[in-house]
Amino acid sequence: MTNASIIGAGMTEFGVHESTLPELFADAALPALDDAGVGPPDVEAFYFGNAMCGLTSNDTHTAPKMAAHLGLDGIPCQRFEDACASSSTAFKHAVQAVESGTHDVVLVGGAEHTTAQTGMSTPEMTRVFGSAAHREYEQPVGMTFPAMFALLTKRHMARYGTTEEQLASVAVKNHYHGSMNPRAHFGREIDTDDVLESPLIADPFHLLDCCPFSDGASAVVVTSDEYADSFTDPVDVTGIGHANDIVPIAIKNQLTGTDAAIRAAEAAYADAGINPDDVDFAEVHDCFTGAEVMAVEALGFYEQGEGASAAADGETRLGGERPVNPSGGLKAKGHPIGATGTAQLVELTEQLRGDSGERQVAGADVGVAHNMGGDAASAVITVMEARP
Amino acid sequence: MTNASIIGAGMTEFGVHESTLPELFADAALPALDDAGVGPPDVEAFYFGNAMCGLTSNDTHTAPKMAAHLGLDGIPCQRFEDACASSSTAFKHAVQAVESGTHDVVLVGGAEHTTAQTGMSTPEMTRVFGSAAHREYEQPVGMTFPAMFALLTKRHMARYGTTEEQLASVAVKNHYHGSMNPRAHFGREIDTDDVLESPLIADPFHLLDCCPFSDGASAVVVTSDEYADSFTDPVDVTGIGHANDIVPIAIKNQLTGTDAAIRAAEAAYADAGINPDDVDFAEVHDCFTGAEVMAVEALGFYEQGEGASAAADGETRLGGERPVNPSGGLKAKGHPIGATGTAQLVELTEQLRGDSGERQVAGADVGVAHNMGGDAASAVITVMEARP
Repeated sequence: MTNASIIGAGMTEFGVHESTLPELFADAALPALDDAGVGPPDVEAFYFGNAMCGLTSNDTHTAPKMAAHLGLDGIPCQRFEDACASSSTAFKHAVQAVESGTHDVVLVGGAEHTTAQTGMSTPEMTRVFGSAAHREYEQPVGMTFPAMFALLTKRHMARYGTTEEQLASVAVKNHYHGSMNPRAHFGREIDTDDVLESPLIADPFHLLDCCPFSDGASAVVVTSDEYADSFTDPVDVTGIGHANDIVPIAIKNQLTGTDAAIRAAEAAYADAGINPDDVDFAEVHDCFTGAEVMAVEALGFYEQGEGASAAADGETRLGGERPVNPSGGLKAKGHPIGATGTAQLVELTEQLRGDSGERQVAGADVGVAHNMGGDAASAVITVMEARP
Repeated sequence: MTNASIIGAGMTEFGVHESTLPELFADAALPALDDAGVGPPDVEAFYFGNAMCGLTSNDTHTAPKMAAHLGLDGIPCQRFEDACASSSTAFKHAVQAVESGTHDVVLVGGAEHTTAQTGMSTPEMTRVFGSAAHREYEQPVGMTFPAMFALLTKRHMARYGTTEEQLASVAVKNHYHGSMNPRAHFGREIDTDDVLESPLIADPFHLLDCCPFSDGASAVVVTSDEYADSFTDPVDVTGIGHANDIVPIAIKNQLTGTDAAIRAAEAAYADAGINPDDVDFAEVHDCFTGAEVMAVEALGFYEQGEGASAAADGETRLGGERPVNPSGGLKAKGHPIGATGTAQLVELTEQLRGDSGERQVAGADVGVAHNMGGDAASAVITVMEARP
């Protein structure tokens, strides 16, 4: 069982930010440190998730740059890049570091620019995202990420009878949740017709089946659970699973489910000593509506093939049996790639503290974060629990 | 004290490779696995160092791509990017993972293309390397890495009387060592006049004071030292230090030494329970001749200001008091960025096993690897020891 805690959490609004990367990240990291009640001298290591700033801004080796801006120079710091799962793999290593006693306090976070500050058009930015696809087998045939998840979802539809209307219900739900999240990129509600009438991007995905390009940053402060005892409002990390899957997708073992997430979920539940029925809510990687369907199935909330009808039936909506993406998810909250993983953990922390206001999940004692990278090739699943 | 071991090591020749990144990496990883006597099913995690392939080849999320090519899909894998120290921070986390009992066998390595395969000119590639400089403060003023280390070296010359001839002796020595290394990018010897008469790149550095752009890959197989007992020829990792320094360099605490490496060396020696006098040889990050001078001073082999005369006096040459860069170093062996850190560990492993042939360091019982990233902002120092 993992024995770590989050003692502080912070994030920026997701949307459009024209500040520099160190400024953007500071707007999440300093609130996280303040929330924990620690200062830069208390931080013993810093792990940073960032996916694409080499490509968008000719900016690499970003960890020490962020550290120096925050007054954290000197301590060990490094950048993790695992596409959309970048800050989750950073978090996994922070948990290992506090559990092994290597460090007492680790700052973990992510930041990304994908909009105006990059100076890139949507096609250019789509190519940047596409860098996570297989360089030799997928990129040359134009396999962008909408196409990738569209292929998986088409198979899901063919095998299980999943419909476009059911997929749309995922987007409608997440926009509803996002309308209650002041930090969401999209704060407006939409309906099924809005989704189905929006332009087709990659069949079966319409524009409103897809998450946006966002800028943003997020951060959490991690300690061992024992060390956390002296802090005000810690939330415990009780399980982590991390697994990968074959790329390119052409040779994956299955195309209607995400094996990396299935394996990672099994590992995370075993680590936490729980099963899917114990989970009260989840933040999942809904880069596309079809991805949320496969996420709730990978997490064992529903049998494979039943994830879409669950959304359509309202089971994953706030007030439903097990709310999914109460933050609005990537779909409505936004998706600043490297910031997404720790942003899920910020939402879990606040929900488990009972601090989520209008979108608070009732009885939130056990939450799960499901973060994926690339062509469903990386998955990190984290189980967090409120302190009794 | 760190209790890990390297049970297998492999690397490609450094130079020009037109193979794809997965092919290139496999040419190091498979020999490393063979050397250890393990197969893909034995490997429990894979940590990959790669610095620039996003920028050179629109290729990110590279860890699962390498893993799938090697038949390692499924297990946790991730990419570390810390500029020229990328595979060393990956290695540090592998050591943590085997020490904490999280994994028994971890494959760690790095690979990089910086030459023909990128399709980039030298100025274009210089800009790619420059992405590791501070985005807001250094890149806009044209602060490339030759310029960066030239500034530090100029201060060293002004303060300590270090001369261009002494700097040249570092290059001459490393080419001599490289002439005995069949995997070196440059296998020819040079003399002081060759260096001083080569074109000026960034005063005081001539072309032959600078390491080349290289392609290449390297890998090591890491276990706990206890687990290593059942393998044929393990070499122990007894200390690791990792530290960072302020970027941009304009606000560093000193400009004639590298604080990140000084701090990391102190930590590594304390971890290993040794002092600099116990070290028989070292592989250091000689991206420029001046960088090797500051490296041997940071490692405590010489007082600050005395590193250059030590090279000129032959103390760091094979046969001298404490050989430095018996492989040829970045200068002659080559510098495929993400592969450089673990390549140093491959050299240490072979030297400590007594397998280095013509360039074997006599009495090599304790070796140190010194790997830096960016504008002297990241440093990882590793102490390795032969088994009695």
